Amino acid sequence: MIWCRFEVEGEPSYGIIEDDCVKQVSGSPFGEYAVTNNVHPLTQVKLLAPIKPGMLYAAGPNYRGHVEGMAARRGSPPSYPDRPSPNYRSVHAVIGTEENIVVPKESAGAVQPEGQLAVVIGKMAKNVSVDEALGCVFGYTIGNDISERPWQQADRTMFRGKNCDTWKPMGPWIVTDLSPTGFRIIVRHNGVVWEDFSSSDQIWDTATWIHELSKYATLYPGDVLWMGTQGADGDMMPGDTIEVEISDIGTLRNYVVAEEQG
Amino acid sequence: MIWCRFEVEGEPSYGIIEDDCVKQVSGSPFGEYAVTNNVHPLTQVKLLAPIKPGMLYAAGPNYRGHVEGMAARRGSPPSYPDRPSPNYRSVHAVIGTEENIVVPKESAGAVQPEGQLAVVIGKMAKNVSVDEALGCVFGYTIGNDISERPWQQADRTMFRGKNCDTWKPMGPWIVTDLSPTGFRIIVRHNGVVWEDFSSSDQIWDTATWIHELSKYATLYPGDVLWMGTQGADGDMMPGDTIEVEISDIGTLRNYVVAEEQG
Repeated sequence: MIWCRFEVEGEPSYGIIEDDCVKQVSGSPFGEYAVTNNVHPLTQVKLLAPIKPGMLYAAGPNYRGHVEGMAARRGSPPSYPDRPSPNYRSVHAVIGTEENIVVPKESAGAVQPEGQLAVVIGKMAKNVSVDEALGCVFGYTIGNDISERPWQQADRTMFRGKNCDTWKPMGPWIVTDLSPTGFRIIVRHNGVVWEDFSSSDQIWDTATWIHELSKYATLYPGDVLWMGTQGADGDMMPGDTIEVEISDIGTLRNYVVAEEQG
Repeated sequence: MIWCRFEVEGEPSYGIIEDDCVKQVSGSPFGEYAVTNNVHPLTQVKLLAPIKPGMLYAAGPNYRGHVEGMAARRGSPPSYPDRPSPNYRSVHAVIGTEENIVVPKESAGAVQPEGQLAVVIGKMAKNVSVDEALGCVFGYTIGNDISERPWQQADRTMFRGKNCDTWKPMGPWIVTDLSPTGFRIIVRHNGVVWEDFSSSDQIWDTATWIHELSKYATLYPGDVLWMGTQGADGDMMPGDTIEVEISDIGTLRNYVVAEEQG
């Protein structure tokens, strides 16, 4: 099943995508909902981020290649994580596919992509075992963890480095009934492949993350967990197009623009 | 004006406190609302956290005494922040006054309080000047930034160290039309004063934080900014009572309990 959110007369609505059409849904897949008779061609709707998360968790370093690539950039030895320790991202920074990533005036202008598998929680999870964990997942979508490396390195927190307005593109939609292992994740910058990796290469898999998090914090329906990225990509500048494609899900496409001066 | 949230027949409702009574309000002070004719004695309602934030920002180190106290605990020299760089806290971890702070089974049992002024945003703030910043504030309440120091020190992020379920007590209510300078903030552990400091001692004041944040991220009505703490308090154990009192606001009181084994 493919779930989306889209704009109907200026208001957000959930929808189910079938045969290149969007069936409008009243209510929410995280509560009660009903499928309506309103059907729109997919090409004619404005897709929104498929969910506005309650909490947006980011799985920190979760691929050895990312730890190594970032360490090489800094000129320091790689420091592998010894346990799953998530960070948070701003839920207000979430945008949908085809929307603009805006670089603030205060930045020198270069930002970087991080293509990530995004796991959407569907059932409350507290103290769940590894075996139970995937039963709490609603579905999977795509995230792009936009980062500004000088700020990330200079600051005590990732507020400026990763959480400016518009810096958390997510979408284009949520696909249910998939397995989180073996996804192929491709990052394309202006059409050129920058990364091509598998979700199988994660240090800890989705079930382990959910199990570990749920020892300390309840995960709620509508929370989202971004699963980390491979590699350490180059700079994107205003004017660039960035795509993250994940097999069996789709492609998240966004455009880098500079904040208007003034 | 004093705004609260409380439970009415199992459902949360906003209310206005006057003369030891709570006038029930339909809607929300962050959108449209109407004062109803339902009035309850304050002593007979169950208060909830006065707001469930959209984003909960924590002002990182914002008092020199906290930087110095934490450095002394670690046996390292103090490292003062060079710019306001907020972190995030879990909105799911927010509880109200008189509720239990639950220490997970995985912890050795000791947690610490951090009494903080909590600033509730009432108007959207983007690129606001220092002079405009306080015009975006709805009101002030009290936060207690419960922390588990061994986890905080061992982990890459503050997920376990500060964001376990129930670890963000906030309340008892929100008071409007106050100035954020000169609040007296008192932390009492089992009735003994552990901290007694002034919000005037902040490294950066409320207006500066809002101005700085709004260069990068829009603040929305219902977001909350915790303003940091002074000192580095001792350990609380299950069975203990912790209070944070702020002048002209009130007292936030919570009880430390151990998670049930099993």
